Amino acid sequence: MVTPARTATAGDPRAIILRAGEPSLSLPTFEQEDEIHMALTGELFIGRARRSTPRRFQAIDPARGGPIEPAFSAAGAEELDAACALAHAAFDPYRSLPPARRAEFLDAIAAQILAQGEDLLQRAHAETALPLARLEGERARTVGQLRLFAAELRSGAWLGLRVDPALPERQPLPRPDLRQRKIPCGPVAVFGASNFPLAFSVAGGDSAAALAAGCPIVVKGHPAHPGTSEWVARAIVAAAAATEMPEGVFSLLNGPDVALGTALVADPRIRAVAFTGSRAAGVALMKVAAGRPEPIAVFAEMSSVNPVILLPAALASRAGSLAKEFVASLTLGVGQFCTNPGIVVALEGEGLSTFIDAAAEALRAVQPGVMLSEGIHRNYTQGLERLAGEGAQLLAQGAADGAGNCARAALFSVPAGSLLAHPALAEEAFGPASLVVRCAHVREAQQVIERLEGQLTATLQMEEADQPLARQLLPALERKAGRILINSWPTGVEVCHAMVHGGPFPATSDGRSTSVGTLAIERFLRPVCYQGFPDALLPAELRAAQLPRWPHRFDGELRLGRPD
Amino acid sequence: MVTPARTATAGDPRAIILRAGEPSLSLPTFEQEDEIHMALTGELFIGRARRSTPRRFQAIDPARGGPIEPAFSAAGAEELDAACALAHAAFDPYRSLPPARRAEFLDAIAAQILAQGEDLLQRAHAETALPLARLEGERARTVGQLRLFAAELRSGAWLGLRVDPALPERQPLPRPDLRQRKIPCGPVAVFGASNFPLAFSVAGGDSAAALAAGCPIVVKGHPAHPGTSEWVARAIVAAAAATEMPEGVFSLLNGPDVALGTALVADPRIRAVAFTGSRAAGVALMKVAAGRPEPIAVFAEMSSVNPVILLPAALASRAGSLAKEFVASLTLGVGQFCTNPGIVVALEGEGLSTFIDAAAEALRAVQPGVMLSEGIHRNYTQGLERLAGEGAQLLAQGAADGAGNCARAALFSVPAGSLLAHPALAEEAFGPASLVVRCAHVREAQQVIERLEGQLTATLQMEEADQPLARQLLPALERKAGRILINSWPTGVEVCHAMVHGGPFPATSDGRSTSVGTLAIERFLRPVCYQGFPDALLPAELRAAQLPRWPHRFDGELRLGRPD
Repeated sequence: MVTPARTATAGDPRAIILRAGEPSLSLPTFEQEDEIHMALTGELFIGRARRSTPRRFQAIDPARGGPIEPAFSAAGAEELDAACALAHAAFDPYRSLPPARRAEFLDAIAAQILAQGEDLLQRAHAETALPLARLEGERARTVGQLRLFAAELRSGAWLGLRVDPALPERQPLPRPDLRQRKIPCGPVAVFGASNFPLAFSVAGGDSAAALAAGCPIVVKGHPAHPGTSEWVARAIVAAAAATEMPEGVFSLLNGPDVALGTALVADPRIRAVAFTGSRAAGVALMKVAAGRPEPIAVFAEMSSVNPVILLPAALASRAGSLAKEFVASLTLGVGQFCTNPGIVVALEGEGLSTFIDAAAEALRAVQPGVMLSEGIHRNYTQGLERLAGEGAQLLAQGAADGAGNCARAALFSVPAGSLLAHPALAEEAFGPASLVVRCAHVREAQQVIERLEGQLTATLQMEEADQPLARQLLPALERKAGRILINSWPTGVEVCHAMVHGGPFPATSDGRSTSVGTLAIERFLRPVCYQGFPDALLPAELRAAQLPRWPHRFDGELRLGRPD
Repeated sequence: MVTPARTATAGDPRAIILRAGEPSLSLPTFEQEDEIHMALTGELFIGRARRSTPRRFQAIDPARGGPIEPAFSAAGAEELDAACALAHAAFDPYRSLPPARRAEFLDAIAAQILAQGEDLLQRAHAETALPLARLEGERARTVGQLRLFAAELRSGAWLGLRVDPALPERQPLPRPDLRQRKIPCGPVAVFGASNFPLAFSVAGGDSAAALAAGCPIVVKGHPAHPGTSEWVARAIVAAAAATEMPEGVFSLLNGPDVALGTALVADPRIRAVAFTGSRAAGVALMKVAAGRPEPIAVFAEMSSVNPVILLPAALASRAGSLAKEFVASLTLGVGQFCTNPGIVVALEGEGLSTFIDAAAEALRAVQPGVMLSEGIHRNYTQGLERLAGEGAQLLAQGAADGAGNCARAALFSVPAGSLLAHPALAEEAFGPASLVVRCAHVREAQQVIERLEGQLTATLQMEEADQPLARQLLPALERKAGRILINSWPTGVEVCHAMVHGGPFPATSDGRSTSVGTLAIERFLRPVCYQGFPDALLPAELRAAQLPRWPHRFDGELRLGRPD
């Protein structure tokens, strides 16, 4: 059952930019306009239908405490089953749509999110305590991600087309015609992240990548921001209706308990998992997925301390400015970024002393900020206690705690020997805390780097005179991290083609992947080979008429696509 | 420590074909010539060194029974540790070689294998009972695989280069320069397969792909053919010396016990696993890898019954010839191929009756063949008993068993309802046995297909009149299999760019991969992003001078490489 598309209202300020030759997209009509700004209902989204359940939960105001209206239905086994059944049924029809149609869907989601205006931002602000300006930026990133994947869909590089034509005369045996393309893996379970209520939640990067790949998604919304999730779910459902996507391409399940996520990952109709969150939760989902009768891939982005290595010439020439930039990166968004610089590695000396003094001074001036939730604040506090307990010396703290879930930035220091003896010192304390590791010599710095677990990022602050040392360190950094930065700071992740937001365990569960950038689509694709197919039965992209339009390898030779 | 390269002897019949401008490769000199044909020593290969241990085992003659000389050293914890330590140490130097240097190494392995001539083939024949002609073909495939990966290395498509140049003027924030390439994941544990003593053992497809990617390998040789493994290991060690590869890029561990493989997968220096073998063994390795403190990827190719679907018009027009072709594919190599057609699905009717009668007749004429080992023969016999026990009707058997490990081909049949009620009927019985599933109508055939587990291949036998039905079935086949064939037979796997030898679990542990064809290299690669790097510190392929030579995406736009 497909809702008829409506046509766009000319002059609508939210009009989607259409390319010539594309079918026009529907935009909200006046009746739908009311729907857009309608108060939250707290319902679940099971495909196109909404459902209430008797079990309810509420978002908690992280700044002032206390529940925020309305109450939200918690999904049980029945809702989970219904969502997975719809996703399974939607898989073949959804994946068989031409890539350009799925691109329309993603563009329409972006337009619908923008159309919600302040309602969405205000709700996200209430649920997360993130400043409105940050949320506006995050919304821009979310919309940008959706549009980037739409453009990627149209480019076709992700299709991975390969053609090895038949060689009927070959000896001793002829070669049949062999063609390869990538198809989506099946319905994907997407877990909303607490720290990106828009960019890594219901219509965030994982959803965009999975929907682009051709996978229906069942989203498990983060219980800290169910209202934000409902707003975004409305945008997706409206976009799906407007672009005539098959029923079941999207569902949203909410619930306060871990059991819901576990059951979702265990459901046999789910074929891959995308998750951003804590190491404990990610590892638990990995175990569930590996223990299924039919194991599936989990793409969990979990834990990283993002080492920053200050090289001697950089410290000698600009220790003071490095310290200020470092503290700004560390405390941005109350330190609640996956790429927060949680460890600084440097050689003992005057430069490092200057850096430490300047960083301590800058940190003392940092005002406390409200963290995303009581749980995250509690974990942060425990993380600080753990660092102190393992022998880290507290160098400085931010201004005194405010009320509620306000976190105070903290800077610790240890000699390298302590970290080598107590590797737990290098574990993430999610929040605005960092540990300066003082090394007596280069060899010790190398030992510290080798001791670190897998990381999302590693950063070198350096001058030209540091190049020989940088060259020595780079091989180890490549082995440890998904992204290496020189002379910038790890917070701030560009959404583009060359980005890698991934890295060896425990940064992610699968170091061969990224959750940001266009390469993220590959997580949800697998190759299929078609041998000896008549043209009429080949997938459209591999047929003689369409193949030249797409980039492909012909007998191994790379050929560019020729767009129509 | 690197052995000096020796120069090739002009006119040597085994001369490697060199491209203009490439450094000349060394080939065996006369002193080495003796070494090439030296009797087997039964030693382990720990990097460049050879080691004996007091614990020994021997290959068993599968045709006549009884041990084959010499005795082989079984690796213990000490040898395992030494091999992994060397592989770990070799990783950075090996991966930092230019791709063309690794290509030389692969080409040299191919040349060294060919240089062993009959010695290698005779030993493989003695250990596996595979006919010499088959082994000669398998050697050609092995050499072809190594050379294909060498060519792939030189093409650079696998590098996955992406460049998003800096946008210093962008608002609200400038974009830094971002570049991406793929690097190897680290040392790989490769498990030799019993059924391909050359093409999927010591220098087989997994080894070629891992070495091409830049990963040192620690091979766990299959205990059924240790002499073949030693021959091939000599070829690799000689090629590594001749092309000046770092010590530790290759080690060979042998041993009769499962514990050795388990310990290898558990070793923290091993970063990925490649395996071809039984479902039980593959699943056991998956559990070990998932249970490590730092889990790693396992690429196990395990179990597939490779459904063949006979469509009505094909049955009506050529049931007799289909039957003969089917039996030939089923019994090729005593049915010991991963892509053996273990299930036939068709609609009841006259055509199917003709097919069954003709297949039964052809099968009765098939002479028994010696299987690879006593264990495989025992499992095959148990598989036949399981099929009969689950209610499958025995339609025909091949000529009476010969002595020892001779297997008798077998054809069974069940109505679709039985398979739907007893899904264990669809489990693999490795060897020349197949099950015809008789369906009352198309819907039942669809149910049977949906009930099947993941497969390496699915085959349609069809005529033009069958196209509407084929169209109906293809989406399900795509979901189930890595390769779909029309009007050919699944045995015989082309080694090329478009091949997929993979598929959803239990066909493989990771349906996003293939173990045959150039795409197999991707299993051992992961992306790394370089942000804000000065040109001099970038990896060579991403520097301004080299980038145009390689295929890459520039701001998302695909650009072809310009070879020098």
